[in-house]
Amino acid sequence: MFGEFNLIEKYFVGRQSRRKDVLLAAGDDCALLKVPEGMSLAVSTDTLVAGTHFLEEANPAWVAHKALAANISDLAAMGATPAWVSLALTLPEPNESWLAPFCDSFFKLADYFDIHLIGGDTTKGPLSLTLTVQGFVDAEKALRRDGARVGDWIYVTGELGDSQAGLDVILNKELRNKPFAEQLEQEHYLSTPRVLAGQALLGIASSAIDISDGLAADLKHILRRSDVGAHLELSEFPVSSQLIQFIGSVDKAQQYALTSGEEYELCFTVPEQYKGAIDATLAHCGCQVSCIGQIRPKGQFLLSNKGQPLDWPQQGFDHFQ
Amino acid sequence: MFGEFNLIEKYFVGRQSRRKDVLLAAGDDCALLKVPEGMSLAVSTDTLVAGTHFLEEANPAWVAHKALAANISDLAAMGATPAWVSLALTLPEPNESWLAPFCDSFFKLADYFDIHLIGGDTTKGPLSLTLTVQGFVDAEKALRRDGARVGDWIYVTGELGDSQAGLDVILNKELRNKPFAEQLEQEHYLSTPRVLAGQALLGIASSAIDISDGLAADLKHILRRSDVGAHLELSEFPVSSQLIQFIGSVDKAQQYALTSGEEYELCFTVPEQYKGAIDATLAHCGCQVSCIGQIRPKGQFLLSNKGQPLDWPQQGFDHFQ
Repeated sequence: MFGEFNLIEKYFVGRQSRRKDVLLAAGDDCALLKVPEGMSLAVSTDTLVAGTHFLEEANPAWVAHKALAANISDLAAMGATPAWVSLALTLPEPNESWLAPFCDSFFKLADYFDIHLIGGDTTKGPLSLTLTVQGFVDAEKALRRDGARVGDWIYVTGELGDSQAGLDVILNKELRNKPFAEQLEQEHYLSTPRVLAGQALLGIASSAIDISDGLAADLKHILRRSDVGAHLELSEFPVSSQLIQFIGSVDKAQQYALTSGEEYELCFTVPEQYKGAIDATLAHCGCQVSCIGQIRPKGQFLLSNKGQPLDWPQQGFDHFQ
Repeated sequence: MFGEFNLIEKYFVGRQSRRKDVLLAAGDDCALLKVPEGMSLAVSTDTLVAGTHFLEEANPAWVAHKALAANISDLAAMGATPAWVSLALTLPEPNESWLAPFCDSFFKLADYFDIHLIGGDTTKGPLSLTLTVQGFVDAEKALRRDGARVGDWIYVTGELGDSQAGLDVILNKELRNKPFAEQLEQEHYLSTPRVLAGQALLGIASSAIDISDGLAADLKHILRRSDVGAHLELSEFPVSSQLIQFIGSVDKAQQYALTSGEEYELCFTVPEQYKGAIDATLAHCGCQVSCIGQIRPKGQFLLSNKGQPLDWPQQGFDHFQ
C-alpha cells in the first residue's frame, strides 16, 4: 500500500527550493552537482543507529536534528560552507507518524543552513540513518587537525557538559525531578552546529575539531595528528548555569565538560599573534568562546583545576568498548 | 580490547595509494577533495541491510562486492567516471573473521575502478552498510532518464535473469541440485558494473538506467521521466546458456530476464542515427549489447514474444511491499 518509491516522493522530493549548483537531484541514478571554481569539496559521513545512538522511542524530530546537526558539525570543524546532504534511512516499516515529524525537523535544519537533500536510499530494516554532507572550503585554509603548534592557545565554543547530563536524564528516569532535567534532555538532541564560527576561524585557527567523543578524547586527536602535548585548566571550562544547578556544583559541572560527548561545539587552537583578535573575529557568530589551555611540547599532558594537578581521563566514547 | 578507532586504522586506513584529487582522507573531520575543472560531480547512495538485501550468513567478500558494485553501477548509468566512496558500516560486534574478507573484496573492486575510500563511519548495531560513491561527468552529456524519444531503440548490456535465478538458489536449498546453481548464486553477488559502457555511450545514448529493480520496472522509470511508451520483444532478451539449462527453456529464461532485479546491467535508448554505431562504440567494453525494443508514444506499453502480445508485469522490486 505504501511503497519505497511513494515514500520518497511524498516525504522527500520537492520539499526544497533547488540550489543553483544542484543540476539534477532525486529521480535519476545519480545527483549531478557543481563545485564552485577554486574551492575544494569537504565530505563527511555519520551513522546513527537506534539502540546505540538514540532510543528507539526517541522523538523523531529530535533524532533528525541530532543526525543532521552532528554531520554539519564536521563541516563546521573544517571551516567549510555546507551545501548538500544525502540521507540513507532504514525503517522497520513505513510509519507516517514517525516520518512526518522526522522530515519536518530535517528540512527545517537543512533549510536554515541552505543545504539541499540531493538523494539517498530508503530501505527496510532496523531503524538507523546514515548521512553524507558535503560543503566547500579553500583547501589551503581548511581547519585541519594537524596544524597545532607549541604555544598555541586552546579554545572551545559554547558551553560543555549539557549533552552528557541530558543523556543521563534519558537513561535514568529518576533524574527527571532534578532542576532543568527537561531542558538538558532537549539540549542533548538539539545542538547548534558552529558553521559561522568555523568559517570565521579560517586563516586564524591553526587546528580545529568538533566535540563528538568528549573534549578530552577529541583534543587528543589534534594532539596526536599535530605531534604535540597540552595543558588544560578545568576552572576555565565553560559550563551552563542550568548544568551547575542540575549537578550541584561548578566543579562537578566542569568535570562533566571534560568528557561529555556529542556536544558539537568546536575545539580549536590559535597562535599567539591572533589571540587578541579572537573575540572580534567571532563576535557575529552568536556563541561565546573560552580559552581553556595551551599547546605544550609532545609528551606533556597536564590537567589542572585552579593550578592543582588532576589525572587526565583515559578514554573517550567508543561504541565497541 | 578492539575499539572503533583501532578497527578503522587496521582495516581501512592506508590500504590504498592516494589519488591526486584526494587532498585529505581519513583522520580529520572531513575528507577534502578536488573536482576536475569543467566536470560535474555525480553522487549516489545505496544501503544494504542484512535480512533485507543479503542473508546475515552470506559470504562477507560477496556482500562487499555486491554493495560497491551496485553503487558504482549508478555512476555507470550516468556515464560518470568513478572517483571516491564513503563507507558507513554497522556491525553487531567487531568480528575480524568477517571484516578481513569483506575489506579484501571491497578494496579489490575499488582498486579495479581506481576508487578511493575517503571516509565513513563504523558503528555498533544490526549488520548493514551504506555507501556513497562519487564520480565525474560532463553534465551536458550525462546519461539521464528523461532523454528517450519516440523511435529510439532500447538496448541492454550483458545477459539478464541470472541474478534472480541466483537469488532463488540462495532462498531455496532444494534448487542446489539443478545445473549451474552454484554459478548462478555467485553471479547474484558478483556483478560487473558497466562503467566503460556507460562512458562510451556519452553523446550516443539518449537515456540510461541501471537494472536494479528489474528491467520492466527500471525501463518504466525512463518512460515516466521521458513521457513516452515502449514496445519490448521478449524473444530478443539476452539470457545465458547456464540460465536456460537451470530453468529448462529459453522462454522461461526470458521471462526471468524481464523482472530479474539486482542485475546491474545498463538499459539505454539510442536514436535511429546512432543505431549503426553501437556495436563499434561498445566493442572495447567487454560486454555484449542487445536491442530489445523501441520507444513508442506515451500510453503505449507493448510486450510481445515472437510477435504474440503478452501482459506487462505490474510491479518491480519494492522493499516495503
